[in-house]
Amino acid sequence: MDRRQLARDLTAIENGELQVDDHHGLIVAITGPPGVGKSCIVDGVLHRLAPKHNIAVLAVDPTSPLSGGALLGDRIRLSVLDDSSKSESIYVRSIATRSSSGSIPSIIKDLASHLLANNFDLVLIETVGAGQSEMRCAAVANRIIVIEGPARGDGIQAEKAGLLELADLIVVNKSDLDGAERVVNDLTISLSLTNDAPPIIRTSAITGEGLDELSDLILSVEERNSSKRARARQQLLMAHENRIIRKPAFDTILDRMSEEGLSVKDALRELDE
Amino acid sequence: MDRRQLARDLTAIENGELQVDDHHGLIVAITGPPGVGKSCIVDGVLHRLAPKHNIAVLAVDPTSPLSGGALLGDRIRLSVLDDSSKSESIYVRSIATRSSSGSIPSIIKDLASHLLANNFDLVLIETVGAGQSEMRCAAVANRIIVIEGPARGDGIQAEKAGLLELADLIVVNKSDLDGAERVVNDLTISLSLTNDAPPIIRTSAITGEGLDELSDLILSVEERNSSKRARARQQLLMAHENRIIRKPAFDTILDRMSEEGLSVKDALRELDE
Repeated sequence: MDRRQLARDLTAIENGELQVDDHHGLIVAITGPPGVGKSCIVDGVLHRLAPKHNIAVLAVDPTSPLSGGALLGDRIRLSVLDDSSKSESIYVRSIATRSSSGSIPSIIKDLASHLLANNFDLVLIETVGAGQSEMRCAAVANRIIVIEGPARGDGIQAEKAGLLELADLIVVNKSDLDGAERVVNDLTISLSLTNDAPPIIRTSAITGEGLDELSDLILSVEERNSSKRARARQQLLMAHENRIIRKPAFDTILDRMSEEGLSVKDALRELDE
Repeated sequence: MDRRQLARDLTAIENGELQVDDHHGLIVAITGPPGVGKSCIVDGVLHRLAPKHNIAVLAVDPTSPLSGGALLGDRIRLSVLDDSSKSESIYVRSIATRSSSGSIPSIIKDLASHLLANNFDLVLIETVGAGQSEMRCAAVANRIIVIEGPARGDGIQAEKAGLLELADLIVVNKSDLDGAERVVNDLTISLSLTNDAPPIIRTSAITGEGLDELSDLILSVEERNSSKRARARQQLLMAHENRIIRKPAFDTILDRMSEEGLSVKDALRELDE
């Protein structure tokens, strides 16, 4: 497909100008706390899966409304895109979560459906596992891979962010650094209480450890029952939330709550009318 | 008030066995990414405000359902509690977010109301600014203080988590470490685009810098219009979400979604009936 046409279509979807039917296919979320090396992992995986597979990457930045997209300057630079034998089967798009409108996950779902319908056999969603709507972005996927970094002395970050229940696979990245072993051990202990624990692997962008295995697993990892249910929950709550956020009166009601002291109860009643 | 009776009441509130009326008073959320030193800040503030003020601390741990509370072992150890001249005016309670039932923020609101009605003049909510329900816990407060740490090379963590819009005050902690200066600069630049930017101060538990100022500001910081609106939004969405989560059929519907492939649309329709 013509890339420029594809880009135009995706922009139209983002702007709500193009309706998209659901399209089945493999959507894998790569999520985890800030700074664990998600972009490097995505780069390593693309090097291994392209050009055999056509892969689209949707990079979701939880940019605050205050910064208005400034973080995009730091956006991932994928070395795989410098390799012309591979870059033609890869498409990368950044999605800025400009407003907390709550509809970003729906947009991502539509973008992923459109990409799957247009010759991509895999969509990767890269999202920071922190902040309110991030779990819902991940829940759009069929499989969720949670990336964790080596211990920094403040516990398992993914656990603190409530991400573990969503994981079909856990990757401890930067395995070349001190502290990776401890995180693997801590995770193993935490997960030993469950009978549906996701597998844990180690990766390192420096040594290349685990990246072949991870690339295989992205195509083949099994869905856990508990992550499936956790994703269903996120999807249901997201759809429920969209019903109220999309009401024309929503913004006015918020103004009246903050400026005139309209109560939550009365706000809901007015929105129900 | 008798501490044992207070503890019993709070447990009854957590279990939904005791109804609580809203009670006005100062509720301040202390939030920020994992590892920035929120507990040390709380400790430093308690040393300064007790025993002049009666202060309750609600410490919210976003423990994953998988770990079932294991993180509580790391729970804050407040040095101020070793000082008997101050500890009598301080009450600390940990709230484990055992299930992602979505009702934790409501429970916190009720706990805070009960504490304010029982002679506490300040309730501090300590919550990790990461994960889905965390912003909603913070939104229960009248004022939100966002703690940030020194730069670790991966940008402003609070910005990534979407916390800045909620902040009435930003604290850059560990100001004795390299990288604190850079975070202050980055935050100043990010916030320069807004006409309603929160003040930024520096603190260090090591040198004591800024802790007197922060203690004063906790009692006096002004509410920003934009944070007020952001909190109203969280409160409204939380109340809306509770309407569906509390339906008796909710869990069964989730089972049918994950086990029988019930669609989101049909799930919502059944829950509406």
